[in-house]
Amino acid sequence: MQNDILLKAARGEETPRVPVWIMRQAGRILPGYRKVRASVKDFTELVKTPELACEVTLEPVNVLGVDAAIIFSDILVIPEAMGLPYQMLESKGPHFEKTIKTAKDIDALRIGTTENWDYVVNALKLTRKELDGKLPLLGFAGSPWTIFAYMTEGSGSKTFSVAKKMIFSEPQLAHKLLDKITETTINYLKDQVKAGADLVQIFDSWGGILGHDTYYEFSLQYMERIANELSKLVPVTVFPKGAYFANEQLAKVNCRVIGLDWATSPTSARSIYKGKTLQGNMDPCMLYADTKDIRKAVQTMINGFGTQNYIANLGHGVYPDTPVDHVKCFVEAVKEFGAK
Amino acid sequence: MQNDILLKAARGEETPRVPVWIMRQAGRILPGYRKVRASVKDFTELVKTPELACEVTLEPVNVLGVDAAIIFSDILVIPEAMGLPYQMLESKGPHFEKTIKTAKDIDALRIGTTENWDYVVNALKLTRKELDGKLPLLGFAGSPWTIFAYMTEGSGSKTFSVAKKMIFSEPQLAHKLLDKITETTINYLKDQVKAGADLVQIFDSWGGILGHDTYYEFSLQYMERIANELSKLVPVTVFPKGAYFANEQLAKVNCRVIGLDWATSPTSARSIYKGKTLQGNMDPCMLYADTKDIRKAVQTMINGFGTQNYIANLGHGVYPDTPVDHVKCFVEAVKEFGAK
Repeated sequence: MQNDILLKAARGEETPRVPVWIMRQAGRILPGYRKVRASVKDFTELVKTPELACEVTLEPVNVLGVDAAIIFSDILVIPEAMGLPYQMLESKGPHFEKTIKTAKDIDALRIGTTENWDYVVNALKLTRKELDGKLPLLGFAGSPWTIFAYMTEGSGSKTFSVAKKMIFSEPQLAHKLLDKITETTINYLKDQVKAGADLVQIFDSWGGILGHDTYYEFSLQYMERIANELSKLVPVTVFPKGAYFANEQLAKVNCRVIGLDWATSPTSARSIYKGKTLQGNMDPCMLYADTKDIRKAVQTMINGFGTQNYIANLGHGVYPDTPVDHVKCFVEAVKEFGAK
Repeated sequence: MQNDILLKAARGEETPRVPVWIMRQAGRILPGYRKVRASVKDFTELVKTPELACEVTLEPVNVLGVDAAIIFSDILVIPEAMGLPYQMLESKGPHFEKTIKTAKDIDALRIGTTENWDYVVNALKLTRKELDGKLPLLGFAGSPWTIFAYMTEGSGSKTFSVAKKMIFSEPQLAHKLLDKITETTINYLKDQVKAGADLVQIFDSWGGILGHDTYYEFSLQYMERIANELSKLVPVTVFPKGAYFANEQLAKVNCRVIGLDWATSPTSARSIYKGKTLQGNMDPCMLYADTKDIRKAVQTMINGFGTQNYIANLGHGVYPDTPVDHVKCFVEAVKEFGAK
C-alpha cells in the first residue's frame, strides 16, 4: 500500500506524521456528492448502487487529501438486512414505518447474512479495486445499542425514551433483540473485511444516552463481542459518542483504536486509554471558524495527543454546511503540524 | 417552616431522612395540570397567569408528597424579558420567530428588570402564601449558555450548530450576548428570592454540547457569576446536564448543591464533589419499569449517595407519559429507604 500510515497508527506502529480522515467526509460537504445525490430518487438508492457508492467514497480522497477512504453507506443497512426497512427523510433523518415492540416482532427478524448486504460487499470490492493500493479502505457498522435504539424508537429522538422504556421495563426482550443485532453485525463486518475493508469502526452514536449503570449491560458488552471477533482480522475502532462516563470500562475493550468526541481533553484521554491509539476529536463546529483559528485549534489538538498512536479526525461527522475550504484547511494543518 | 429538610440538606445540615422532589413535577404527568393546561389558549398563557401557575405548582405537593414546590414557569421567560418573545409549539417545543445573529440584534435587547417578569414574581408571592409555611419554594432559571443556545438557534436542536457557530466564529459577539443574559438572570433570580424562593436552581440543560475546552469559557464562568451573587442570599443548585467532562471545574463553583444526571455514578460524584450536597440522579426512563424494580433502583441510588448531604430526584425532568403511580412509588421509596 502506497500510504498506510493510518493503518500503522491504528496498529500502534511508528508513523512519520499524524494520519487524518473525517467522519462523513463522503457526504454533503462535497459538490460531487451533491451532484450524485441529486441524480437518484433517494438516499437509500445511493447506498444500494455500488458504482455510485464507490464514486462518492473516492471523492474526498481526491478532493480533501485524506489518508483513508471510508465506504459510503449507512448504519441502518443492518435493520434492513434483518427485515426492518427504513427511509431517510430529507432534513428529518431516518424513519421506520414499523418498529420493534414485542417478542413476536423480534422472532420475525432474521440474522442477516451476505445476501442481505451484497450491495455493500460489491461497493467495497469496487472501491478497493479503484483505490488500487493507494490508501486503506475503512468499513463500519453501528453499535448494537444504536441500531436497537432506531429499531425500537423508529426515528431519531432527543431522549430515545421508547428505546429506553424497553431496556428498563423488559430487559430480557431488549437483550434478545441486542443479541440478534450483534450476530448480524458480526456477519456484516466479517463480510466487509472479506470484501476489502482494512479496518472497521463501530459507531456507538447513541451510547451517551445510557448511564453509568446501564452502559455496559446494554451497549458495551455487545460491542465487546464484535470487537473480539473482528480484532482477529483487522484493527477495530470503537467510537462511543457521548459516553465519557464509561471511559474506564471502555479502556478494557479488545480494540486498537478509541474514537473520541470533543467532550474529552487529549490529556485525560491519554491517561485513561493507555496503550490504545486515539482518534478525534475536534468539535465539528470549530470548522465554522476562520482558517487561522482552525489551524491554531489543530495545533493545540496535536500538541495534546502527540504525533504517535494518533489519528486526527473530528469528534463527530462534519456538518453539511461546512465550507469545503475549511475542511481542506483542517486536513492540511494536520499534515503540517502532525510531522513526527 | 413545618418541613424544611430539603433546605437543611441543601445547606449541608443533618436531616432525619433524604428529601425528595422531581424535576417537572408540576407538569403533564398530573391530571390537574392537564386540566388547567386545557383551559388556556397556550403554554405561555399558563406561565403568565399567576393564579394558574400557583395552582399547578401546588398540585404535586398534594398529590405526590414531595418535600418542595418549584414554581411553575419556563426558562424562556428570560429571552422574552430581554425583548425576544417565544412560542411553545405543541410536541415541538420552543420556537423563536426572530433569532439573534448580529451585534445590532444584541444591542436591541434590554437587560430585563422586575417589570419584565412581574407575573413570575406574583406567582411566587401567591404560592408562598398558599404554602403557608409548610414547605420550601424553589425558584429557577436557565444557564446563560442554555438561554443563548435558544436565542441564537431559535428552537431545540440535536447539534445546536447555529449557536455553536457563533461561539467559534464570533466569540466576542457571543460573550456580549452571554453577558447581557447573565445580568438579566441575576436580576431575575434576585427578584425570585425577594418574592419568596428559598433556593434557586440554574439549569444548564445544553451544557453537554460544549466540550472540555469551551465549557468554562461559554457556560461555567457565567453560571459562576450568578452563583456568586445568589449564594449570598439562598442556597444555589447548579445542574450541568451532560457536562460530566467538566466535573472538576464544576466542583469549584460557589454553590451548595450540584444536580446530577444519570450518567454519573454516585460513588464517582461523591469523590469529585467533596463538601457539596448532591441532587439526582435516576434515569427518568427507569420510571417506566414496574414498581418493584423502581423501589430496588431507589434503594441502590440511596446506598450510593448516602442519606446525608443528598436530595433525591431524577437525572432529568420526568417524561410526560410516566404513570403517576410510578412517580408516587419513587417518592415513597425515597422516604422509606432514605431514613438516616
